[in-house]
Amino acid sequence: MARIRPDRSGRGRGTISQLAWRDVVNQRPHTEVLRPEQLEDLHEASLQLLAHTGMRVLEPGARERFRRAGCAVLDDRVRFDPDMVMETIRTAPSTFTLRARNPQRNLTVGGNHLIFTAIGGPAFCSDLDHGRRPGTFAEQRDFLRLIQSVNIIHQEGGGPFEAMDLPAETRHLDLLASLAQLLDKNWQGIALGRERAADSIDIAAIALGTDRDGLAAEPAVLAIVNTNTPLSLDIPMAEGLTELSEAGQAVCITPFTLAGAMAPATLAGALALQNAEVLAGVVLTQLVRPGAPVMYGSFTSNVDMRSGSPAFGTPEYTLAAQAGGQLARRYGLPYRSSNTTAANSVDAQAAYESAMSLWGAIAGGANLVNHAAGWLEGGLTASFEKLVVDAEMLQMMAEYLQPIVVDEDSLGLAAIDEVGPGGHFFASPHTMTRFETAFYQPLVSDWRNYETWAESGSIDTTQRANRIWKQLVAGYDEPTLDAAIDEQLTEFVARRKIELGSTGAQR
Amino acid sequence: MARIRPDRSGRGRGTISQLAWRDVVNQRPHTEVLRPEQLEDLHEASLQLLAHTGMRVLEPGARERFRRAGCAVLDDRVRFDPDMVMETIRTAPSTFTLRARNPQRNLTVGGNHLIFTAIGGPAFCSDLDHGRRPGTFAEQRDFLRLIQSVNIIHQEGGGPFEAMDLPAETRHLDLLASLAQLLDKNWQGIALGRERAADSIDIAAIALGTDRDGLAAEPAVLAIVNTNTPLSLDIPMAEGLTELSEAGQAVCITPFTLAGAMAPATLAGALALQNAEVLAGVVLTQLVRPGAPVMYGSFTSNVDMRSGSPAFGTPEYTLAAQAGGQLARRYGLPYRSSNTTAANSVDAQAAYESAMSLWGAIAGGANLVNHAAGWLEGGLTASFEKLVVDAEMLQMMAEYLQPIVVDEDSLGLAAIDEVGPGGHFFASPHTMTRFETAFYQPLVSDWRNYETWAESGSIDTTQRANRIWKQLVAGYDEPTLDAAIDEQLTEFVARRKIELGSTGAQR
Repeated sequence: MARIRPDRSGRGRGTISQLAWRDVVNQRPHTEVLRPEQLEDLHEASLQLLAHTGMRVLEPGARERFRRAGCAVLDDRVRFDPDMVMETIRTAPSTFTLRARNPQRNLTVGGNHLIFTAIGGPAFCSDLDHGRRPGTFAEQRDFLRLIQSVNIIHQEGGGPFEAMDLPAETRHLDLLASLAQLLDKNWQGIALGRERAADSIDIAAIALGTDRDGLAAEPAVLAIVNTNTPLSLDIPMAEGLTELSEAGQAVCITPFTLAGAMAPATLAGALALQNAEVLAGVVLTQLVRPGAPVMYGSFTSNVDMRSGSPAFGTPEYTLAAQAGGQLARRYGLPYRSSNTTAANSVDAQAAYESAMSLWGAIAGGANLVNHAAGWLEGGLTASFEKLVVDAEMLQMMAEYLQPIVVDEDSLGLAAIDEVGPGGHFFASPHTMTRFETAFYQPLVSDWRNYETWAESGSIDTTQRANRIWKQLVAGYDEPTLDAAIDEQLTEFVARRKIELGSTGAQR
Repeated sequence: MARIRPDRSGRGRGTISQLAWRDVVNQRPHTEVLRPEQLEDLHEASLQLLAHTGMRVLEPGARERFRRAGCAVLDDRVRFDPDMVMETIRTAPSTFTLRARNPQRNLTVGGNHLIFTAIGGPAFCSDLDHGRRPGTFAEQRDFLRLIQSVNIIHQEGGGPFEAMDLPAETRHLDLLASLAQLLDKNWQGIALGRERAADSIDIAAIALGTDRDGLAAEPAVLAIVNTNTPLSLDIPMAEGLTELSEAGQAVCITPFTLAGAMAPATLAGALALQNAEVLAGVVLTQLVRPGAPVMYGSFTSNVDMRSGSPAFGTPEYTLAAQAGGQLARRYGLPYRSSNTTAANSVDAQAAYESAMSLWGAIAGGANLVNHAAGWLEGGLTASFEKLVVDAEMLQMMAEYLQPIVVDEDSLGLAAIDEVGPGGHFFASPHTMTRFETAFYQPLVSDWRNYETWAESGSIDTTQRANRIWKQLVAGYDEPTLDAAIDEQLTEFVARRKIELGSTGAQR
């Protein structure tokens, strides 16, 4: 099988073995949960929603772009001609590349490529030592060091949690500078308002030693644009989308279609709504800049009807993830799904809901799994231990996606004959030549027998993950950054903090 | 979606809601991890193994059957002509039915039917209260009550663990009588030796108020036959297979092809070996009784090459499960896979390894998931809490396999238009009519927000599972058994215990 390439460089990484960085490619056929006619019905329904009900668009500039493209605009409501929608989205690319500081970590978005992105957006952080709490800037930087240190994570997710000890108006600058300094991987930008989007672009340009023109030619920033479901696009997100698309950077249009709350309590209704909102967003990107890179984002889940609590990693979630892939492929757009759970601790529920989400994403043909590592509590918390558990699941998926080799050597009929009935392969030459590389080696799973495990303290998976993330952070290797770039970053952040200073008081 | 039918009958079941009993049907396309030419290469390789290396068959009667069918028999080695193999297995049925005491719980094996079977075979039991220990007969009966009480479990697995307080030679009789008395579901028999197989058949006949002829016409017993990998069939298993097939009962031929130990350290080699051994076993069933029901069992996993420990729910395991499905379908045989983990506690690892196994089985087109609920520690332990966690995962899979409905009503465009941009669906009539049935309701998952969860004690999933199994056992409803049948069972067991008495001393 020869499918393991453990990281043996690992200076300071202690005894932690993990898969080497790899471009994960998914050549398996996608699981199709919608029949072709159902896919078309959803497509038609979403076009009908856009034409009849329309979107509420709060940002005047975006409304004006829609109006000029032939949409009917009445007050803040925009109604779309179906032909215009389909014609306009044709300029969106089916694949694009995102640059990273380390060119070997550039990302291909689309096709059969699969990107695993760390969690973005939570309010809180948590670990076993200090529980769940608002995070600090120092903790945020440790989380970023962990993301850099885990090879199976391809991309950072635009800030794992808020640094609550920094002023709200400028903390995004500290985050963005940290991303540029601590990672040589690609990181997501922030689409929430024109200022943050522009800062994301400018800092990416500085980090890559280029300017906005260079970045437009070879984009580096991807940011998530959430519509306000149902059928609204708010001002900050429209501004962020516009800023990013104008600069030729990528956005991922992701409605949060929570069935039973912001969306109908049916998969079909939620998917039709999701599709309508994604199409409206994609249209806007292409009106801003034809050819601007854009992804189809799916985030359809459902509430617990008894409590109104959002649920994740449910059977409905998995179906929606796979149906979303079919919709994205219908439009030739790269597809984003997520790794989610509603669990409040890193326990069996956290793992099985994440597993349901990951299979939804991967069998559904996702090109990017957002929140792939670290998500807990329905996305309210970034967990250090969950990141390690997720990394194990992602590594297993990456190995699962490797092709099976069937040839004379791997079949080993002569070796089987030599071992013979009742024999043992452990010492056979066929085995010995594969000793190092035959099978997947786990990161946090413990395969020892019960007695050995119990004698060494009955340490469960989450406790083991606690040890591992600390070892990884302790062994973090800061990637070398050109001193001039480092200085430019510092200057940029200092200048921008002054510009934003009038409202930058700590709170 | 209307996909939930909570059990509202539940006398004495407290507040535990679960899915109602259902025939789970998997109409999704199977995931194919082998290309067609790879499938053929594996097929040819296994026929070559059978022709060239052959099987060691220790039971003289089985060797004689093979010899009469044209095999070359030299000492205990049997070599198979490929054409004879393919010709002989043609009489094996592609689907069959297994009777249960409750006819509504009869099982269809094959086609797109999916059966979830509780764990069978461990040495130990465990729960959070008393840890991992040898089990007693009383504990075994509680485990059976739990199996009967969980609707998503279709079949019992032939004894969840050994009752160590009973004499070894006769404890199978106490188990079989308990199965017949405590369950109205189907249960697996025991293939280990002619005596146990015959007792399984006789007790099934008594429980169903029929005799061996009646049972042959409408089989009720399925038992697992493990080959002794590599390439051996031992005496007890050959006897059990023969006894069951002669009686028209079903066997599932399952080699334990542990790559790197009893099988080559490659997926291709392990699968070729698995396939050869399954084919040899299927041939024997059809030589004993053409048309005897038989399943293709896959249990290919791999060892940890550093320690020799068996690993389960690995990427290789998942691939093997899906490849095994392709092989089984090539021969038109119903396919058995499993729900496995190497974890020593019911934690995140237990859940994600089980999830990898379940997806391997279900996307791989399994007709029966053996050990679907309760398996821990690589199968050495039956866990009360793991059974509940597994039941949640099985329920989620069953819901996931329900078709998506896309029609005017489910799309709800008028409802979306009525709610309008920025509105909320929680109180909309479209939602209210679906309030009870819209989404999957979990068994053990906790979807409450962090604050509520923490205030009520931060109870994790395994602790919740502990509460649930106790409630289920406490609320167990013993299905009514005809008094005459009950008496016959008691008499049969008493007589057989006397017959086996000479070696029946407690040990």
